[in-house]
Amino acid sequence: LIGAEAIIRTLVAGGVDTCFVNPGTTEIHLVAVLDRLTETRCILALFEGVITGAADGYARMAEKPAWTLLHLGPGFANGLANLHNASRAQIPMINVVGQHATYHIRRDTPLTADIEGLARPYSKWLRTICSAAEAGFDVAEAICASQRMPGNIATLIVPSDVSWSEGGAVATIPASTKAPRPATETVERIAGLLRSGVKTAILLGGNTLYGKGLQAAGQVAQATGAKLLAPYPLTRLERGAGTPDVERVHYILEAAKEQLKEFRQMILVGTVAPVAYFAYPNKDSTLTGPECAIHTLAGVGEDCAGAMQDLVEALPMPVNPQHAVANIVQRRPMPSGKITTAGLADAISALMPENTIVVDESMTSGRELMPSTKLAPRHDWLGNTGGAIGIAMPLALGAAVACPERQVLCLSADGSGMYTVQALWTMARESLRIVTVIFANRVYGVLKREFSFLGTGPIGPRAADMFDICRPDLDWVMLARGMGVPASRVTSLEEFSNALINAFQSGGPSLIEVLL
Amino acid sequence: LIGAEAIIRTLVAGGVDTCFVNPGTTEIHLVAVLDRLTETRCILALFEGVITGAADGYARMAEKPAWTLLHLGPGFANGLANLHNASRAQIPMINVVGQHATYHIRRDTPLTADIEGLARPYSKWLRTICSAAEAGFDVAEAICASQRMPGNIATLIVPSDVSWSEGGAVATIPASTKAPRPATETVERIAGLLRSGVKTAILLGGNTLYGKGLQAAGQVAQATGAKLLAPYPLTRLERGAGTPDVERVHYILEAAKEQLKEFRQMILVGTVAPVAYFAYPNKDSTLTGPECAIHTLAGVGEDCAGAMQDLVEALPMPVNPQHAVANIVQRRPMPSGKITTAGLADAISALMPENTIVVDESMTSGRELMPSTKLAPRHDWLGNTGGAIGIAMPLALGAAVACPERQVLCLSADGSGMYTVQALWTMARESLRIVTVIFANRVYGVLKREFSFLGTGPIGPRAADMFDICRPDLDWVMLARGMGVPASRVTSLEEFSNALINAFQSGGPSLIEVLL
Repeated sequence: LIGAEAIIRTLVAGGVDTCFVNPGTTEIHLVAVLDRLTETRCILALFEGVITGAADGYARMAEKPAWTLLHLGPGFANGLANLHNASRAQIPMINVVGQHATYHIRRDTPLTADIEGLARPYSKWLRTICSAAEAGFDVAEAICASQRMPGNIATLIVPSDVSWSEGGAVATIPASTKAPRPATETVERIAGLLRSGVKTAILLGGNTLYGKGLQAAGQVAQATGAKLLAPYPLTRLERGAGTPDVERVHYILEAAKEQLKEFRQMILVGTVAPVAYFAYPNKDSTLTGPECAIHTLAGVGEDCAGAMQDLVEALPMPVNPQHAVANIVQRRPMPSGKITTAGLADAISALMPENTIVVDESMTSGRELMPSTKLAPRHDWLGNTGGAIGIAMPLALGAAVACPERQVLCLSADGSGMYTVQALWTMARESLRIVTVIFANRVYGVLKREFSFLGTGPIGPRAADMFDICRPDLDWVMLARGMGVPASRVTSLEEFSNALINAFQSGGPSLIEVLL
Repeated sequence: LIGAEAIIRTLVAGGVDTCFVNPGTTEIHLVAVLDRLTETRCILALFEGVITGAADGYARMAEKPAWTLLHLGPGFANGLANLHNASRAQIPMINVVGQHATYHIRRDTPLTADIEGLARPYSKWLRTICSAAEAGFDVAEAICASQRMPGNIATLIVPSDVSWSEGGAVATIPASTKAPRPATETVERIAGLLRSGVKTAILLGGNTLYGKGLQAAGQVAQATGAKLLAPYPLTRLERGAGTPDVERVHYILEAAKEQLKEFRQMILVGTVAPVAYFAYPNKDSTLTGPECAIHTLAGVGEDCAGAMQDLVEALPMPVNPQHAVANIVQRRPMPSGKITTAGLADAISALMPENTIVVDESMTSGRELMPSTKLAPRHDWLGNTGGAIGIAMPLALGAAVACPERQVLCLSADGSGMYTVQALWTMARESLRIVTVIFANRVYGVLKREFSFLGTGPIGPRAADMFDICRPDLDWVMLARGMGVPASRVTSLEEFSNALINAFQSGGPSLIEVLL
């Protein structure tokens, strides 16, 4: 077996079979193996930022490691911004990155780069394979490392002579170690705090925002009246009718402080105490009030869903009917007239199919989306976890690959969308069931708002030129069609609703440009 | 003075006045200063890979430091692939990268990243500013570092509290140290080698490929009959009628070996001995023959143009008329009929205006371009120096900003073009005189060729799916128009020539999609 085959067969043996790829010369032996091994699915993207974002979306929904195949230092570097987001999402991902032949690196040819240096900031596990004989073993370790709670990025650098040399063997994947559950005393102590009658918030992270973890969190809330919160950077939140009510912490510092000021204690589950995104002159970044005590049920890396289930056991049940989960779908009425962000949110609430995966990078245009869809049919909500813009379309792509039977609704700001616009092409190529809505306000709205916070007076024309992305206006219909995605532009809420109905019915990719 | 103002005023004092920018919240105080300081020109791009590539193009043509302003770790990371190319181009560049407030970093909020770690692989000089008081001084040092021969990337990380705090001062820029010239004995020794009558090549790097350096190189060649060569990765080559004949080393290993086999000695000037891009099983990567002795006139970081001038002094002049420079423009005749890569090259030779800046990332479609334009009117040729694809349109953008009076001709493969397609928008916004030609062969041609080298038989459908970028076809006319750039598609050489004539006459940006 050549090294390349040992690598890919070991990945497949570990259940890692979906490869988001943009290969180059140093990966050509891996490509030749992928050409033959039909157990794998390879999805090409025209830019690596699409690949890493798609891998993130795949891992969030498939709940198993995503796999990328990237070309040397620069190809890998192109994927870094969405790796930043993925590292904050704490999902399992394995990057296989080509490298020059071991003996060629010292020749310092044009594509030579410090790949390990580039990979270190976002790789929890990092290794350059030394020989074909070790390749399978290294892949097995990478798989284990990626799956260690809460989910990690593992980067495996593969010199081309490792790929093409004989002597490889498929390695067996060691059983993954279970994440530790908090000690009984910790659970008892938190249960005691919840019974104290003090106004309490539980800030949910990791796998307590969907599935069994969320179900347990809902039981705790029902039994104790504690408020369930999610951090602003949202990996995956299951919501809609029949799910416990979880409120997201606001992005804006003042709004978040207002939202959190009533709580006297906060229980952290797989997350950290909420802090403002950015620092501002003479403002405190801590979002909880000074009288709010912070306690931890489970830290990052512990079995959070398990911890919530333990907490349920430790609390008096049955539920307090006052805190019962609302189980009936309540869509917003169909809106009409001039486009408003509230109207758009209502149309989405009115029309989104059961089980939709909503990917949200709507930025300043999306304020009303979560309130409007609170009691829509059950759905998952994926957000931007690391603040690196350009995640929405790649994330949607990966989620759609992981869940082909579900509708994906990708909500993107126009400024963010341009970062990884190449994702549209892969959506078309793979005929993915993704409706992309572009909120075309033609401005970096966050920056305009931040400038106004400075208190230095109105925005001058030179700063405005760094915020406004009109001049020329982007034509998203042409951009989408240029990459093979059917598209339309809407200028009223009726048009938006009709476009949304048609898009959902099409069963394939489409794009709607909303002029705000 | 707040730190932000000290930073920008010191940059301006150092002659660094053109800022390629995509700012974020942590850079908002810098933006507020740029809003007021009209000595600066700010050019917005919708993706940072465009920014770093444009800065590279600007520095190559303006021969002074380029300046970028980027948002935190992920914004900077998006620019890394073209920084890889810029680091290989050895041009002066200053990256100003925002950072959280010093006291906010430890809060580890979503956008927190190891910016120094991300910057280290491609920054020859790297510093995080500690206080407003030191900001001006640090900028002055960055300017000096960037200009140290042969030109370096300097990265300056600016915490937001450094930007907003009072106590800054504009620093004076120290006189830059001149690069050392080789010792007299070295020049004499090389002159002796050149007089020996042995078949000799001079491999030119750095600033010996244009201007005074090239002129001196031409004199040496005329006096000695030595062959002038340029490395395949080309920062900037002045060529066309009236310039010395410089041959580029071939990309393909076998072709390069054939090209270089006749030489018995090679003189290096600011470059290293030529090596194949990639290693291949059982093939030697060294491109010169085993009997070719390698000598160095000037190393990277020495004054190469000065060294060439010293060499001219040390050699017997006047020129040997046999080696005189061809001074008469010889355009190729206008081609017609079906599109061929040779025909396209001839049309470009027939039509390119005097003083054009040609940016070449035509990849496998561009083989005939350099031979066809050898005696075209004088022009500069900028290439991909580091092999990270997606450089052409950004590079063209930066070159056009540096030289608004000159025509820029951007020759891009379709696969490469998609990497930084957002550059088109900035071309339109700034009304730049750039004609972009897309060679739409709808395939990653290099990879197809590399696969065939494997000798493992024909390309299967699964590998073909990783090479072919049809399905769906990209529509470059729509993509360009979607970003405000007039565009047309051509399917014959007559159509191409007409489109080229119109595009050159327009004086603004345009795109021609050539279906191959």
